[in-house]
Amino acid sequence: MNTNEINLSNSGLILSKIVHGMMRLNTWNYTKKELLKLIEKDIDIGVTTFDHADIYGNYTCEKIFGEVLKDKKDLRRRIQIITKCGIVLSKKNHIKYYDTSKEHIIKSVETSLKNLNTDYIDLLLIHRPDPLMNPNKVAEAFNELKRDGKVLHFGVSNFTSQQFKMIESRLNFPLITNQIEVSPYNLSNFKNDEINFLMKKRVNPMAWSPNAGGLLFKPNDEKSKKLNNVLNEVAKELNLNSIDKVIYAWILNHPAGILPIIGSGKVERLKIAIDSLNIKLTKEQWFKIYTTSLGHNVY
Amino acid sequence: MNTNEINLSNSGLILSKIVHGMMRLNTWNYTKKELLKLIEKDIDIGVTTFDHADIYGNYTCEKIFGEVLKDKKDLRRRIQIITKCGIVLSKKNHIKYYDTSKEHIIKSVETSLKNLNTDYIDLLLIHRPDPLMNPNKVAEAFNELKRDGKVLHFGVSNFTSQQFKMIESRLNFPLITNQIEVSPYNLSNFKNDEINFLMKKRVNPMAWSPNAGGLLFKPNDEKSKKLNNVLNEVAKELNLNSIDKVIYAWILNHPAGILPIIGSGKVERLKIAIDSLNIKLTKEQWFKIYTTSLGHNVY
Amino acid sequence: MNTNEINLSNSGLILSKIVHGMMRLNTWNYTKKELLKLIEKDIDIGVTTFDHADIYGNYTCEKIFGEVLKDKKDLRRRIQIITKCGIVLSKKNHIKYYDTSKEHIIKSVETSLKNLNTDYIDLLLIHRPDPLMNPNKVAEAFNELKRDGKVLHFGVSNFTSQQFKMIESRLNFPLITNQIEVSPYNLSNFKNDEINFLMKKRVNPMAWSPNAGGLLFKPNDEKSKKLNNVLNEVAKELNLNSIDKVIYAWILNHPAGILPIIGSGKVERLKIAIDSLNIKLTKEQWFKIYTTSLGHNVY
Repeated sequence: MNTNEINLSNSGLILSKIVHGMMRLNTWNYTKKELLKLIEKDIDIGVTTFDHADIYGNYTCEKIFGEVLKDKKDLRRRIQIITKCGIVLSKKNHIKYYDTSKEHIIKSVETSLKNLNTDYIDLLLIHRPDPLMNPNKVAEAFNELKRDGKVLHFGVSNFTSQQFKMIESRLNFPLITNQIEVSPYNLSNFKNDEINFLMKKRVNPMAWSPNAGGLLFKPNDEKSKKLNNVLNEVAKELNLNSIDKVIYAWILNHPAGILPIIGSGKVERLKIAIDSLNIKLTKEQWFKIYTTSLGHNVY
Repeated sequence: MNTNEINLSNSGLILSKIVHGMMRLNTWNYTKKELLKLIEKDIDIGVTTFDHADIYGNYTCEKIFGEVLKDKKDLRRRIQIITKCGIVLSKKNHIKYYDTSKEHIIKSVETSLKNLNTDYIDLLLIHRPDPLMNPNKVAEAFNELKRDGKVLHFGVSNFTSQQFKMIESRLNFPLITNQIEVSPYNLSNFKNDEINFLMKKRVNPMAWSPNAGGLLFKPNDEKSKKLNNVLNEVAKELNLNSIDKVIYAWILNHPAGILPIIGSGKVERLKIAIDSLNIKLTKEQWFKIYTTSLGHNVY
Repeated sequence: MNTNEINLSNSGLILSKIVHGMMRLNTWNYTKKELLKLIEKDIDIGVTTFDHADIYGNYTCEKIFGEVLKDKKDLRRRIQIITKCGIVLSKKNHIKYYDTSKEHIIKSVETSLKNLNTDYIDLLLIHRPDPLMNPNKVAEAFNELKRDGKVLHFGVSNFTSQQFKMIESRLNFPLITNQIEVSPYNLSNFKNDEINFLMKKRVNPMAWSPNAGGLLFKPNDEKSKKLNNVLNEVAKELNLNSIDKVIYAWILNHPAGILPIIGSGKVERLKIAIDSLNIKLTKEQWFKIYTTSLGHNVY
């Protein structure tokens, strides 16, 4: 394991500390060759983990990615694939409802395997906490998928601690991540104690929208403007030429061991995140960003 | 155990899945003979569990019910009685304070036994989470009542998960229900994760006010009007002649195994609930009701 | 152990049930002789526990207190010292950030020992839940301080239940208090279930600002005015000549076993708190104060 890698929640699953998000893969308009090149560049700089979901790109992203794997069978062993299930989209690409039934989970994974041209998923997540979720049925699906080698590890996304504990109570193995929103702009998972819950359980969170969907670069409200200023100040103090690295370092400096998911189609952006692994903020810098986001000092 | 029954939280206590609420028994103005007839009709259709509280009808409902039991001793074994304690009313029938002292709990149960003309309560609940509650004293009362055979099983009502765990931590036996507000109109116990907590513990909730105190039939705010429309749409889709069955099915379809409490004096209303046990909503229908109540789509 | 004392959370640490808060010691302008007299009077009336923090008086209070201990070595064994660490002040006496690193905790305690002229702290608290807190590092610091006999017991302050559990999960010994805000005016730790969490764990809370920083004596908003009226009513009912005793009795009557921290420089105020240990409110009185603070009846 090199310094760019993490043994996720001590599960044995080695991921890159920076995860490449595939949510908008369909919009990058890459040829198969270009996408292969992107993946290989990712691997070169130390990004080997790719985050998918059945529904990304209105059910198209996994397929686009899988086209590359089809021709390059050796590539599969050099990367780790995360995917998700549990949301059902309407034909208009809106969320209709959640489905965490045993049948849906298994069917969704089988479709993912086919689309991705692989025979295993490294890490499967339930995409959202379904209010109609039956933990017994989720466990049955997970057990069957694990037994058949179709999925190696399991986690959740956007779950509260109570929901996390409910699912885990039915399993003989631990859930190894909760993919949640974390950014200097969005402190909700600090405020609701979810990050502390995961630290208590020694579970590494993954952070979606680590730069608040671009808002921290193009601020459009008072909070994002103030944050943008402070991020620039800190960047200057650290002799960094852009605030991206400050944002990622702010997340990476947290002791929970958070893996940011970077959803860009440009390897340069991933390289920025990788470089951030070596940046150390002072406590004063970290708190300046935190309290600016809070809107008040700690007291 | 027939299909109308449930082994509550795997405790061995068999209840009917539909519970008949006695909160307004005093207002129905039934003669003893009429009340007996109601109870027997209930049993005929599969409703054998009756939900009381010491304070219902300003301390009168248990007594009215007990008058019937006095003359029909065999009836007692064919039904299950839930009652509650912990609220103290003023003479004006307002809540003055809570009392969950050992003395009050035991005295309240002894009065309930006398009023109900029975020598045991199937299930005793603490009515509200008392901020002055001493879990050690509650446990002492429960232990004594259990030892003496005066109460067979114990639970709580309107408790948070933390309060539930606090009481249970002092007992050698589990609490077997939390009676909480659940309806298509009131999602509070979804939002605060209480239902997930109970599912995690494999405890069956009971739902009070399952039709939001009649508001879903006679809507008087925007939310209830929208819900009434959606409930009517779903009723139409399912070829049901009223929305009651949709409401109960919405609750009964949830995997937590929720027992709705129906507070009507008319057996026909209970029959509607019993019939709802066989109705299956699609996920799309269930979520349409849920998101209408939320006021926004799931995301 | 006399009736003024408590075995804190059954840890073996005997404290006085009334704790003398040293936050404003620097403003009392006592000579060393006067301060010694105050401490001896405290001991005479049954107040033996003194609550400090590294930062009190902009890092001066421990030193002022320690000057007295230097000359009276026998005094140390007759009192118990609580102190705290984890907040870093700027030169302008504002909170800059939190620091719960191993290095900071150990260094802070070593400074406290030196300032206080003692070789052990009875009870060390982390002053605030630091969002950058690494529970492993806090545990390493605690273990080292315990091993070296520099700190006998550990707790936290202003922590949520999740944060409490996170720290405790890394320790081989329990945390024995959470110092939180509790007063008839401030019910936040009732509402957020923290007091129930601590009762479940059999941990005694300490209450800071038990009289809401004096607001209950000099009310200046509608809530404090209403509370002041009700506190006076209850004082009258109990034939008490001031509302202080009602306030302390309201806290002391709670089954969680809460230790109020009194921050006054006058021993007479401490005596009032000690006298309150014997006052019993009726449930009706307790709830009248509680519901006045809530702003509505319990329901």
